[in-house]
Amino acid sequence: MEEMPPGIRFYPTEEELVSFYLHNKLQHKNNDINRVIPLLDVYKHEPWQLPKHCGELCHGDSEQWFFFMPRQEREVRGGRPSRTTASGYWKATGSPGYVYSSDGKVIGVKKSMVFYQGKAPTGRKTKWKMNEYRAIEQDLSTSTPMLRHELSLCRVYVVSGSFRAFDRRPIHATESSSNGNINITQKTDN
Amino acid sequence: MEEMPPGIRFYPTEEELVSFYLHNKLQHKNNDINRVIPLLDVYKHEPWQLPKHCGELCHGDSEQWFFFMPRQEREVRGGRPSRTTASGYWKATGSPGYVYSSDGKVIGVKKSMVFYQGKAPTGRKTKWKMNEYRAIEQDLSTSTPMLRHELSLCRVYVVSGSFRAFDRRPIHATESSSNGNINITQKTDN
Repeated sequence: MEEMPPGIRFYPTEEELVSFYLHNKLQHKNNDINRVIPLLDVYKHEPWQLPKHCGELCHGDSEQWFFFMPRQEREVRGGRPSRTTASGYWKATGSPGYVYSSDGKVIGVKKSMVFYQGKAPTGRKTKWKMNEYRAIEQDLSTSTPMLRHELSLCRVYVVSGSFRAFDRRPIHATESSSNGNINITQKTDN
Repeated sequence: MEEMPPGIRFYPTEEELVSFYLHNKLQHKNNDINRVIPLLDVYKHEPWQLPKHCGELCHGDSEQWFFFMPRQEREVRGGRPSRTTASGYWKATGSPGYVYSSDGKVIGVKKSMVFYQGKAPTGRKTKWKMNEYRAIEQDLSTSTPMLRHELSLCRVYVVSGSFRAFDRRPIHATESSSNGNINITQKTDN
């Protein structure tokens, strides 16, 4: 990946995450997937420690990082998952939603979370966010849609000042743009 | 590029567009750049004809396409550029803005435009938009910032329903999510 031209990056859609990465990981296909999205117990780390564990396609990325996460033991035994780290906790925001394929089929569910520093319920909201995806797959014998919760895929990200990654700019640049006193000479030769 | 894993795409930042692509093109360096961003007189085509002219890294992309555009002859002679096509016209939206490097330096200017169908000023706004970038570079002998307007870089894009490409979903999926009657069986075996 080192010789790729600038601007080429891992920027998957939700459909690609669920239909390709999560699906193939659940099917134990294609072990190269771990180089793109490694397996990690996300909740055992502080959010700002996560970027250094990311896959090789995200190295150098400053916005989002992807991980597969095994189901917690306590959840397997019927309990609720623990989303508390040493310094804070992840808290759900909004209701879980569905993930759609481009032909409009439901292929997964998605939970969105925000990281709070401190102890619940008085923690301080941070800029660290997460989407946790689980796949919904047809049971081949009964055609029933099944929620595969033995493994999830997490997208950890920080909220930038801009809506779209494309427009991102340094925070201090926004300030300097407001005085706008830049003296530019028009080039007159062709 | 054919064997790349899903989710790898040309998704450059403005800084990469201006500092790498536009800069190297102006310096006549690296002819491979044309394979990524071809030279095209964008205003000679209807917007919906542009995707088929895009570079090989954007093939299959349904959101944005990049082109280098030579300065129009009439502009070289001191006139205003013509932004009229057979079926409509491009019209500026908002004021031109600056493009910043990640260390906060001004490296370019950016004009945003929307395509209207019909005759000005009564055309009908479409979903086709464009950012046109020009580089600002230091004159090496005088250190004066110079606007390089002999060549610009255009990003043509269509506005999707979602703020971020990441979350994009088919339009009819948004409708089916509102009734939400999907029957999912929880998988109980591990």
